[in-house]
Amino acid sequence: MRFGRIAHPDGMCFAVIDGTDENALVAKEVEGTPFTEPNYTGREWPLADVKLLAPMLPSKVVAIGRNYADHVAEVFKESAEHLPPTLFLKPPTAVVGPEAPIRIPEFATKVEFEGELAVVVGKPCKNVKAADWKSVVLGYTIVNDVSSRDLQFADGQWARAKGIDTFCPLGPWIETDIESIDIDELPIQARLTHDGETSLKQDSNSNQMIMKMGEIIEFITASMTLLPGDVICTGSPAGTEAMVPGDYIEIEIPGIGKLGNPIARA
Amino acid sequence: MRFGRIAHPDGMCFAVIDGTDENALVAKEVEGTPFTEPNYTGREWPLADVKLLAPMLPSKVVAIGRNYADHVAEVFKESAEHLPPTLFLKPPTAVVGPEAPIRIPEFATKVEFEGELAVVVGKPCKNVKAADWKSVVLGYTIVNDVSSRDLQFADGQWARAKGIDTFCPLGPWIETDIESIDIDELPIQARLTHDGETSLKQDSNSNQMIMKMGEIIEFITASMTLLPGDVICTGSPAGTEAMVPGDYIEIEIPGIGKLGNPIARA
Repeated sequence: MRFGRIAHPDGMCFAVIDGTDENALVAKEVEGTPFTEPNYTGREWPLADVKLLAPMLPSKVVAIGRNYADHVAEVFKESAEHLPPTLFLKPPTAVVGPEAPIRIPEFATKVEFEGELAVVVGKPCKNVKAADWKSVVLGYTIVNDVSSRDLQFADGQWARAKGIDTFCPLGPWIETDIESIDIDELPIQARLTHDGETSLKQDSNSNQMIMKMGEIIEFITASMTLLPGDVICTGSPAGTEAMVPGDYIEIEIPGIGKLGNPIARA
Repeated sequence: MRFGRIAHPDGMCFAVIDGTDENALVAKEVEGTPFTEPNYTGREWPLADVKLLAPMLPSKVVAIGRNYADHVAEVFKESAEHLPPTLFLKPPTAVVGPEAPIRIPEFATKVEFEGELAVVVGKPCKNVKAADWKSVVLGYTIVNDVSSRDLQFADGQWARAKGIDTFCPLGPWIETDIESIDIDELPIQARLTHDGETSLKQDSNSNQMIMKMGEIIEFITASMTLLPGDVICTGSPAGTEAMVPGDYIEIEIPGIGKLGNPIARA
């Protein structure tokens, strides 16, 4: 089931995004949140007539950096053996939804996309064993871990480079049918449109992840309690590249969806 | 005015902590939050009969690292000129209140206190000019930026070392009378009790801060929107040291108060 959050003519709500024809999807309003069985209000709209928002407003966004060896090599000029995966945080204020502009401030001079599989947490949890990871997951979505590469290296800490307002596009929805998706074999692609020309920039697969989902959730929850709605970013494969105002970036993960955002000046 | 958050016999609430005798303070329940003029309910308790909680549950905790030259020297063995202040995030799940145990997990082998002045944000803000910083501040409190020094260096990124549950003691309350406090001349002290003996470990002053409050708020809000209740940690002076279960750590900032926490095994 796909849970989205939408702005419709009368307000905002969570909605089940339903339909088999991807070009004629329907947003069905539900009472409450995606954490319980959907209670339909009966109101619905063609998806084309509403605006998808970020599907969740997380209390925290926990991210695993350096989780794909080819990306470690391209960014850090080092082997993943010497630079193992590490944990960082993106602030909730960076989260935006599909089609919301990624706004680049003047001082961020090399702002790159990072297409990633994201996990939305379903229940409060601590000290989760790797084998039990599915029991705490609500579903999957897509995140663009937008990163100002220059600030990232200048600051040493990544919080600012990856935490600027709008630098965490999330969506388009949360796919909660986690049994239908093979999390260890998911293609991840990023397409950048620049000067009217669209090129495939990232073309990888979650099978390249160094820390797998179970390890990631065990690693994080050994330190931090995760709360319902918290988002885990699982790392970016190689192919990241700078974007400039006027560009459009689209991340695609088959079985989940597409997350597209235009680039603008802040 | 001192705003605390308390657990009382019938529940939890915000309260004004009132009185001139520091040994006989009274907690006066208010409706709502510290963001509006207090509306007293008429219920009150001797402070000794209630439990102070973290005075705020922030949506994010933004921290400035390396903001005191002597602390940069002791931790990084480098000059502050070569390692300027940097920004990092602590997760909201790390926040605990006064007297709550700081719980050290097995894998965190060198866990140090860092006594710091903290600012609680009063209104949503972005792109605040340094000169206008007071207009967005609700008040001051104290934070202990507890840090696992070994994990901090092993990970490179500080989010885990400083983000473990209970690693962000906050309190005892928010002093909202910001005009009564000279933020640029505030003594900051930390006393560690180990084996029954109490020693003064940190003894500094906010006049040693490299980035001053206005610069800090301008710097953060150039990137991130701050929301009401968000907490800014302004950096730790030298004197940080490892704590072990059984110890007790107290941070004191005259004019604000004392924040004390016992150390326990997770």
